[in-house]
Amino acid sequence: MKDRMDGFNLAPTQVLAIGFALVILVGSMLLNLPIASQDGRSIGFINALFTSASAVCVTGLVVVDTGTHWTVFGKTVILILIQVGGLGFMTLATMLAVLLGKKISLKERLLIQESLSQYTLSGVVRFTQYILLVTLLIEGLGALLLSFTFVPEHGLAKGIAYSIFHSISAFCNAGFDIIGHGRGLTPYVNDPIVNFTIWSLVILGGIGFSVIVDINNKRSIRKLSLHTKIVLVVTFILLTSGFLAFLLLEWNNPETLGNLPLTGKLMAGFFQSMTTRTAGFNTIALDQMNDASKLITIILMFIGGSPASTAGGIKTATLGVIIFTVISVIKGKEETELFKKRIPRDIVNRAITVSFISLTLVIVVTGILTMTETGFSFLEILFESTSAFGTVGLSLGITSELSSLGRLVITFLMFAGRVGPITIVFALARRQRKYKGIIKYPEGKILVG
Amino acid sequence: MKDRMDGFNLAPTQVLAIGFALVILVGSMLLNLPIASQDGRSIGFINALFTSASAVCVTGLVVVDTGTHWTVFGKTVILILIQVGGLGFMTLATMLAVLLGKKISLKERLLIQESLSQYTLSGVVRFTQYILLVTLLIEGLGALLLSFTFVPEHGLAKGIAYSIFHSISAFCNAGFDIIGHGRGLTPYVNDPIVNFTIWSLVILGGIGFSVIVDINNKRSIRKLSLHTKIVLVVTFILLTSGFLAFLLLEWNNPETLGNLPLTGKLMAGFFQSMTTRTAGFNTIALDQMNDASKLITIILMFIGGSPASTAGGIKTATLGVIIFTVISVIKGKEETELFKKRIPRDIVNRAITVSFISLTLVIVVTGILTMTETGFSFLEILFESTSAFGTVGLSLGITSELSSLGRLVITFLMFAGRVGPITIVFALARRQRKYKGIIKYPEGKILVG
Ligand SMILES: [K+]
Ligand SMILES: [K+]
Repeated sequence: MKDRMDGFNLAPTQVLAIGFALVILVGSMLLNLPIASQDGRSIGFINALFTSASAVCVTGLVVVDTGTHWTVFGKTVILILIQVGGLGFMTLATMLAVLLGKKISLKERLLIQESLSQYTLSGVVRFTQYILLVTLLIEGLGALLLSFTFVPEHGLAKGIAYSIFHSISAFCNAGFDIIGHGRGLTPYVNDPIVNFTIWSLVILGGIGFSVIVDINNKRSIRKLSLHTKIVLVVTFILLTSGFLAFLLLEWNNPETLGNLPLTGKLMAGFFQSMTTRTAGFNTIALDQMNDASKLITIILMFIGGSPASTAGGIKTATLGVIIFTVISVIKGKEETELFKKRIPRDIVNRAITVSFISLTLVIVVTGILTMTETGFSFLEILFESTSAFGTVGLSLGITSELSSLGRLVITFLMFAGRVGPITIVFALARRQRKYKGIIKYPEGKILVG
Repeated sequence: MKDRMDGFNLAPTQVLAIGFALVILVGSMLLNLPIASQDGRSIGFINALFTSASAVCVTGLVVVDTGTHWTVFGKTVILILIQVGGLGFMTLATMLAVLLGKKISLKERLLIQESLSQYTLSGVVRFTQYILLVTLLIEGLGALLLSFTFVPEHGLAKGIAYSIFHSISAFCNAGFDIIGHGRGLTPYVNDPIVNFTIWSLVILGGIGFSVIVDINNKRSIRKLSLHTKIVLVVTFILLTSGFLAFLLLEWNNPETLGNLPLTGKLMAGFFQSMTTRTAGFNTIALDQMNDASKLITIILMFIGGSPASTAGGIKTATLGVIIFTVISVIKGKEETELFKKRIPRDIVNRAITVSFISLTLVIVVTGILTMTETGFSFLEILFESTSAFGTVGLSLGITSELSSLGRLVITFLMFAGRVGPITIVFALARRQRKYKGIIKYPEGKILVG
């Protein structure tokens, strides 16, 4: 019995990891074609692999400027990889099955469930349909808003293409841009439409579908699930403190906020705080920030977005569980308590595990890169690894100068960052499911990692 | 009832912190005197405060070279501060009370108990007497061994003085040296006697008295307490992996191990691994190590030594509890298990709390220093803060170039590193005591933080 349970539950983990790897591989082969590059020559496999992994893992680190290097074909491939990676290929595959009228098996349901870190089996199919609908709606609306800036600037065809690309890239927290000539979205630092639209898309994409559904279904704040509450509280605190910290630290820096008007300062400060939540866009020159701002960016990138979203990192809920555990300990309480609910021990242990493994991974890769790369400072390398692990995509500008070995290591870390924390959750979800029938937890549920 | 319990238990924490602060203050006044400095002029209060805090907190960071700057008076003051700080002023104070035949009150017992993170009240007085005896014995033996190198080299009087100073400094994990002219113990990188003696003193001092007592009292390994087992296992793993890592990374570096003979390489590699466990001595030029070695040093310094010892850091037992929790989670177990014992939830939560607060403290201070200091790299600053928090005393050479504000911040961090984790344990120990009468834990006990 035990063996059957194990076999039954381990499979989805492996299927997901292999599935992600296959999509990345197909993407690299397409991007490796000469027709993908503007100069008509193949970019080389390592660079194609890097770009494909960056797109599928919605990271946004790039070895070449997306806008100028790739052809329309190349950009379309990247956009599809982003959408597939962002929504999770399993969700998409099953959605197709639903549309084609094929019956979904329990095993397939479990796969989708795990790809979204959901905790109940019921309504998974409906939930998946809902996700696709919401995604299309939000991305469509985002593209429409962006077109008010991009169409007048770039003409109708290009303007619409730009609007669609950046709307999808923003909602999927991918961070790829095709306008900046390597400067990201810095030309739009003062543009309210671009700022507001990108903010909304990134925050909605990074907060998790379960939270969006929960808010949509509940009439009062009190009735929201514990998971929704902790995600909202932690997200709000991180966004606010990041905003204030960047304003404070960069206010007079002429290379970043210093020369902007007041509204520009405020928008750029908020943009910077928001983008570290695994979005990966930038409206200011990151390498010109002072070291304290870089350090704060690294911490925010490591935390990342919320579970069951397009975001990476250890996740807001994980941080929330740890902080509330610390608070409970300081208050002298036996168990972790928040919002008048107790957090079961296995969720706290899971939060420790996700944080510890993530921290170890980032430190080990940083250590390896200090050896394989020369000419970069420790801070630049730490920034790059954290960005890759958190699938953020911000960089102090060293990505395109990485050695081949360095590119492969970062590719692995992007993959591990996207698959790893989820994989851990599976391994753990197994146990929780097993016990569910025997012990009924009275405590609140939270998705971790 | 609750209030009385709270008042009763909070007091020792405050007394300890205030006591440490008072000893530091008295030390700074003495070191501020003109007769303390060789040039006959006062060193200035901030520098005197820094040195006194560094000695009392057994850190070993110095703004001036201990050997050449201070007079015999100054060095004696530093040595006394080290011994007082290392053994804990409360232990000493109470020992004096015992020697003078004064009866020790329950409250005084609690104070000593907490200053040593002990978990039972019984035998505290005997334990304290034992500590003093063991300390004198070990330090005497250490001084004797060191004299075989130092007396032939520096003559009888100076040789004996050097031997006593370094024996005490090593056993207390203080890391102050008075020979190196700012080069630490690098002249002795190939000296087997100095190496062996310093290793033994540092490891014994950093492993904790309760472990020494436990090993001394038990006849077989199986009978050792859970705390002793976890401390020994984690210490062994850290020492071994640090040793191998430094050998691997520095083997061919001509500025560190590269030009040493084979035995010198091995000794220097082990010395480097051992010293990061809050000892703070060095036999190689730290700033010449490559970045990967510096990163490993930072991690080992952050972990530090074992509870109830002269060491700092989050402590080996804390790391052990976290790692075994991660392993238990991966194995799908509900609770943290090790050596066939379960770890109670409050100990796991305490480990999270100590680690989280420590990490936060180091990151915040590093961030502050990136703003107050100019001309240092991020890695140098991170190294310095971790060293101060872990009361290690290793430095990439920036201590004497810190601004006044930077010196004060590091002074605070040394103090927080020495008092903080202990203080947290008190706050937590309170709860454990409170529940003790009601719930009897069948689980093993571990000191954390
Ligand atoms: K991203
Ligand atoms: K030390």
